[in-house]
Amino acid sequence: MDYREVEGTREFVARLAHGEDWRAQIEDFARAEKIEAAFFLGLGAVQDAELWYYDQTDQEYAPIEFDEPLEVASCVGNVSLLEDEPFAHTHAVLSRADGSTVSGHLDSATVFAGELYVRAFEEPLERAHDETTDLDLWPL
Amino acid sequence: MDYREVEGTREFVARLAHGEDWRAQIEDFARAEKIEAAFFLGLGAVQDAELWYYDQTDQEYAPIEFDEPLEVASCVGNVSLLEDEPFAHTHAVLSRADGSTVSGHLDSATVFAGELYVRAFEEPLERAHDETTDLDLWPL
Amino acid sequence: MDYREVEGTREFVARLAHGEDWRAQIEDFARAEKIEAAFFLGLGAVQDAELWYYDQTDQEYAPIEFDEPLEVASCVGNVSLLEDEPFAHTHAVLSRADGSTVSGHLDSATVFAGELYVRAFEEPLERAHDETTDLDLWPL
Repeated sequence: MDYREVEGTREFVARLAHGEDWRAQIEDFARAEKIEAAFFLGLGAVQDAELWYYDQTDQEYAPIEFDEPLEVASCVGNVSLLEDEPFAHTHAVLSRADGSTVSGHLDSATVFAGELYVRAFEEPLERAHDETTDLDLWPL
Repeated sequence: MDYREVEGTREFVARLAHGEDWRAQIEDFARAEKIEAAFFLGLGAVQDAELWYYDQTDQEYAPIEFDEPLEVASCVGNVSLLEDEPFAHTHAVLSRADGSTVSGHLDSATVFAGELYVRAFEEPLERAHDETTDLDLWPL
Repeated sequence: MDYREVEGTREFVARLAHGEDWRAQIEDFARAEKIEAAFFLGLGAVQDAELWYYDQTDQEYAPIEFDEPLEVASCVGNVSLLEDEPFAHTHAVLSRADGSTVSGHLDSATVFAGELYVRAFEEPLERAHDETTDLDLWPL
């Protein structure tokens, strides 16, 4: 495994805005604060969600829409640069009234309420195309 | 999204006590250490659990009880002040022997075993009633 | 609950290697960097996974294999010493194309792609046998 020691110089708590997109807000925040590398952790609830499943054989994303209110039981992700812009790679675990759960790579979701911890690192992280997976990963 | 830069001055690892409540222990710890703002991350197992689902239309919580042993596949939450007392807002992902999963807002759960990382912030975070969602959120 | 204040002196971001074991890589990294206490947070995808469910009554682990590609919607864990070697206690939430989810204690999984944040602590954490649960826990 490739890794890099980083220096966490700034950290934030945030309240996501009701009615706006979960992931876009994180990217807007990163742009405003000039954050080019971070990990984040969150919880909350959304009014709907679109997950993207990556087919490891076809190497293509397939979207799945959930047009229903869902709890965000967990949200784990990171911010790094993709084509010079901050990209919030976001995975989420979502649940219904009976506890039943769907989860995966979160492309978009309308926030009902959300709380976030963001730890930003000094050194920029940049994504580049990876041949093996056809994904944009970090060359560390 | 509203946010605040925070300073993480203290951090802790913890072992939750067998047979006691998962969330109450975090609040007792926060009280003992005078923690008024923190995020935490955990894993473990519980003997039972009560999740509370927030109905976004009725704006009311509905409890669901799981009277069975469950793994805690993930626990994400934070500590802030609610009516001057530390409140541990806690979401959890719980699973059975076959991997099947329930998740959501954790009200209570009897600990079998549990491990926690807590990052405490210098500046207190305080919850206040939010008109739009009828929840107690952070005005940041 | 027992707890210990820790000092987080080093932190890392990592990219897990394609085709290798998720958990073994974390332990190899810990060994290489002489990390004897840490918490970590991750996301990604795996080509297969083996979860171990701990039966709280029989006090034995039962393995479940998932021989299919899965997203890692969340990975939460920690590193501490078990019989003088770094042990990566790892819980994961895994999902399929339709969002359906399995989760629990991750014993092994073949990485497709994976991203990790590791926060290492100055003071070693050591596991020892716990009578009540028959697990190896931290005496804090």
